[in-house]
Amino acid sequence: MTPSAAKRAARARPIGVFDSGIGGLTVAAALRDLLPAEDIFYIGDTARVPYGGKSAQTIERYSIEITALLLAEQAKLIVVACNTASALAIPRLEELLKVPVIGVIVPGARAAVAATRNGRIGVIGTRATIQSRAYERAIHALDAGVDITSQPCPMLVPLIEEGWLEDAVTDQVIRRYLEKIVKADVDTLVLGCTHYPLLREPLKKFLGPKITLVDSAANCAAAVKKLLGPLAAPRNRVGRLRVALTDSSSSFLRVAEEALGLQVGDVELIPVRNAGAASLQ
Amino acid sequence: MTPSAAKRAARARPIGVFDSGIGGLTVAAALRDLLPAEDIFYIGDTARVPYGGKSAQTIERYSIEITALLLAEQAKLIVVACNTASALAIPRLEELLKVPVIGVIVPGARAAVAATRNGRIGVIGTRATIQSRAYERAIHALDAGVDITSQPCPMLVPLIEEGWLEDAVTDQVIRRYLEKIVKADVDTLVLGCTHYPLLREPLKKFLGPKITLVDSAANCAAAVKKLLGPLAAPRNRVGRLRVALTDSSSSFLRVAEEALGLQVGDVELIPVRNAGAASLQ
Repeated sequence: MTPSAAKRAARARPIGVFDSGIGGLTVAAALRDLLPAEDIFYIGDTARVPYGGKSAQTIERYSIEITALLLAEQAKLIVVACNTASALAIPRLEELLKVPVIGVIVPGARAAVAATRNGRIGVIGTRATIQSRAYERAIHALDAGVDITSQPCPMLVPLIEEGWLEDAVTDQVIRRYLEKIVKADVDTLVLGCTHYPLLREPLKKFLGPKITLVDSAANCAAAVKKLLGPLAAPRNRVGRLRVALTDSSSSFLRVAEEALGLQVGDVELIPVRNAGAASLQ
Repeated sequence: MTPSAAKRAARARPIGVFDSGIGGLTVAAALRDLLPAEDIFYIGDTARVPYGGKSAQTIERYSIEITALLLAEQAKLIVVACNTASALAIPRLEELLKVPVIGVIVPGARAAVAATRNGRIGVIGTRATIQSRAYERAIHALDAGVDITSQPCPMLVPLIEEGWLEDAVTDQVIRRYLEKIVKADVDTLVLGCTHYPLLREPLKKFLGPKITLVDSAANCAAAVKKLLGPLAAPRNRVGRLRVALTDSSSSFLRVAEEALGLQVGDVELIPVRNAGAASLQ
């Protein structure tokens, strides 16, 4: 292959995106909007979902295994569209990978620091994400003076997956989890889980208009655009979204498709084996 | 070994018990109460919990892999202390195993048929359990005339794992799921998930005193006792409970220990690999 042919081939390779399940489709939807020329290969690890209550070690191992599947699809860049995996596996993936890798936490932290006026930021996420303190580290790396209030919200993902998006029960759970955040007088709240944008309306209803919601999806897509640089697909292309899941059962998929207005089409089933770190080239 | 020595050795082998997570400890607790001389080796597949929203194929594969780990511990009998795995994996396990295997569904169905006076039984469980119609088949095999009303309750496990056992949110979710069951005028309700006994009080509060709750744990333990026969441990022994998990993270373990009054002690970490059916001897 001539150098220019090799470059063309590299540009046509897909962006690899993964999440523990379906939630990361919020990121895939943002990528489709911002980068319509790019092919996207998305894997949801629905055979082992959720990651949010599992140990750092297990989350790292799963992330490596799913990344190996994306590399087998020639991914030119890896997007970790899962806050839990971003919080716990990115350092190890960065060590192992030859292609660029980007998560949702640093872009979210950057947007939150840009948005806050009073220097007080709230962060909500899964138990594993909050315990990792990854958002705190990322925010303080940008501005050590910011005051952060964090709250794990383990019930929100099940509520979203049950499709109870506009629901009195969900409102009550939101109130319980977010009271502490409101009392801390934050003016910015990071939605630190890719599912949470689906709760934007009930969150806004509870928090009122004065608190800015920072959603990792759009910010991550913008960061991917910047990171792609010369690897970006030619503009005149029409990109395609392929979605693969590690388990065939996904009652939540239709909820997500409808809420995101995303055309997922046929979903592929991809078996996950213990691929291990060796195959990450 | 002489035949009598071999028999003694067989009797001293542990009962192998597994669940997708911690919920099956309700069954382990019932076994400890009824069969204090038996050693119990319990595995919770917390690395892949929950099973309840996953496909039949994946649930069967996971059940086979965990059973292989129990057989490696010389289990003399396998108890599937998980309704979802009982509903979807027992037929295949029965084909593959040389040791007896018992689940929670048949004992629960038997107890429900014995308890009902008006011939109307309700069943609640995970999405996978209810979709499998395993309870309907087991109940109708005993009495084809029984009228069954089933309801998947996907929010109950997350609520229990969050420790919201006496809680207004939980009461509200119970009301929503169980209205249909109450309207069907059942007099017996099968708690078709090993977590649900932890919600016995709020369920009773909503259902009132006229509906009998059938809990698979105690009924399964009684069935195990019967099935053991000559494999039962000598009565003068003091049995031991060992608990192993496939992932180290288990914020729910302390909730379960407290609610069950169960001394779990040190928990072992056991890695799960794709053991496959080959090792099931």
